[in-house]
Amino acid sequence: MFAVVYDSCGGPKVLKWKVVENPVLDFNEVLIKVEACGVNRRDLWIREGIYQHLGKNKYLGFECSGTIVKRGAAASKLPIGSKVCALLNGGGYAEYVAVPEDYVMSIPSGLTFEQAAAIPCSASLIWLSFFERNNLIRDDKVLIHGAAGGVGSLAVRIAKSLGCVVFATAGSEEKVDFCRTLDADFAINYKKQDFSEVVARETNGTGVNCVLDCLGDDVVDQNLKSLAVGGKLICIGYKDHWKWSSVEMKDLVSKDTTIMGININTFNVVEKRNMLEGIQRDIWPLLKGNPHLVDICATYSFAQATQAHTLMEKNLHRGKIVLLPRTDLPHTDLP
Amino acid sequence: MFAVVYDSCGGPKVLKWKVVENPVLDFNEVLIKVEACGVNRRDLWIREGIYQHLGKNKYLGFECSGTIVKRGAAASKLPIGSKVCALLNGGGYAEYVAVPEDYVMSIPSGLTFEQAAAIPCSASLIWLSFFERNNLIRDDKVLIHGAAGGVGSLAVRIAKSLGCVVFATAGSEEKVDFCRTLDADFAINYKKQDFSEVVARETNGTGVNCVLDCLGDDVVDQNLKSLAVGGKLICIGYKDHWKWSSVEMKDLVSKDTTIMGININTFNVVEKRNMLEGIQRDIWPLLKGNPHLVDICATYSFAQATQAHTLMEKNLHRGKIVLLPRTDLPHTDLP
Repeated sequence: MFAVVYDSCGGPKVLKWKVVENPVLDFNEVLIKVEACGVNRRDLWIREGIYQHLGKNKYLGFECSGTIVKRGAAASKLPIGSKVCALLNGGGYAEYVAVPEDYVMSIPSGLTFEQAAAIPCSASLIWLSFFERNNLIRDDKVLIHGAAGGVGSLAVRIAKSLGCVVFATAGSEEKVDFCRTLDADFAINYKKQDFSEVVARETNGTGVNCVLDCLGDDVVDQNLKSLAVGGKLICIGYKDHWKWSSVEMKDLVSKDTTIMGININTFNVVEKRNMLEGIQRDIWPLLKGNPHLVDICATYSFAQATQAHTLMEKNLHRGKIVLLPRTDLPHTDLP
Repeated sequence: MFAVVYDSCGGPKVLKWKVVENPVLDFNEVLIKVEACGVNRRDLWIREGIYQHLGKNKYLGFECSGTIVKRGAAASKLPIGSKVCALLNGGGYAEYVAVPEDYVMSIPSGLTFEQAAAIPCSASLIWLSFFERNNLIRDDKVLIHGAAGGVGSLAVRIAKSLGCVVFATAGSEEKVDFCRTLDADFAINYKKQDFSEVVARETNGTGVNCVLDCLGDDVVDQNLKSLAVGGKLICIGYKDHWKWSSVEMKDLVSKDTTIMGININTFNVVEKRNMLEGIQRDIWPLLKGNPHLVDICATYSFAQATQAHTLMEKNLHRGKIVLLPRTDLPHTDLP
């Protein structure tokens, strides 16, 4: 089959659409003909060589949508022909991918393949942050950083669907404008404004119940200041690999505060299965019939993976970037 | 009635056994004739004036045992004459204390008044740390600091009752010896040894699932190093009021780690009630018939509160310090 590969680590231009070995289907796996694949920051880090690729599927791509075309002997939940999306251990930047059926979900009705491919990674982080390790309810206050990005934009939509009050931050006026279109209650340019002051003012000093942070150390002081008593700072990423930050444990104790790093790569099979069941139980109903909740900024063909990575590297995207196996690409017939 | 009071903040000698106004019983409260009262670090801090007293009961003492002698109009769960222990918002250093009946628990069978008075504060922190915000099970690995103290010693006992592997630390050889008598699997003098190295060696590098920390910033690096993937560092106190520590958010994300401060003073009525129900459900069965699980180091009369505080200030205690209204004290008959 064809896949996006790179012979050596480097910039976006190392990515090429080339013939590779066909995936080998394990007994508990299904083979998916990929219709779309979400692009994540992790893809860029692995391509650059600053993050290790841990999956058995050695190509990039940690989420996809598509059609089940073959099943392993022990894979029996979803019939051949099912339209699905999946959380992958790599391998999505390809025509076909083999994935344990536990990591496969039916597509919420009303969503296109493109939209479905844009969800699994974001939904995983959001489910853990808002549902499993938190219990966000109506009128809770949530601060979401990187709200114009793939995870952030879906997080704003889901928090609003739950009836929360949402403070959204982004790093440019254009992105702040985009956050307003997401229906965020407050959209803040965190480079121009101390968001903790906005939070304090708009919550009468009580703060937010949850901060969803993809920036890391840069703003940890403002984040902790923004938290209400009993609040949780949930860190799902970090912008800067080398920056440290001071946290006073006394502050954590005095406000009954939690700081949490989330990393689904550390999850075992049972934890991942529970998570995907949770997503389908708690998040799918919010998305069903509401396709506008999934914001896609740009679609590229696999052969244009270089352009897709460049767009994300420049931080110019709003919402999600998706790759598609367009018909102009050379392709293979499997199985 | 009589109570331990202080006219100005200062050293242990400011404490005096003096006549004060009788407590006023609210409709949802019970009046407890105090039989014993646990001493906590917070009592010392408030006496010194470095920590604010927030309770409606303005005397020291945040846990007690005793007998219900009167009930408010809406207090109907436990009959007069019930032998109980209670979590207090202050007021335990006195002959009588009025407390909402939601914060009152029946004494687990087999425990004396002294032992029952030693439990409520410790059990609250332990229940939150091991049960509510964690889910410790058999064979989980737990690192407990200050294991010779009131909270720490009970925490070791409870973790062992759950079938956990316990690493206990203390700051002197005498206290380390005491930790061994608590049945800790590994007892470590944290001033002499890097406990994270012991944890790494004895867990084949995987680390512990939970660290219960009352030291704060001093050892945060070693604590984070000691944690397993998905582990939780739970901070229930801090030794040093002015020390800061660096935490790299990236490390939290890479290991899916949580740092949590716990402070029951921030809890609302519902949260406290849920906590006390949880203690009675999860911890009482472990203590019933096992009075040896509660370690009391010294008992003093209320008139000897100065000596009790001095002992804790010198950090020479092992287990819990308890105050008793001995018959040699002047006393009042209420109601």
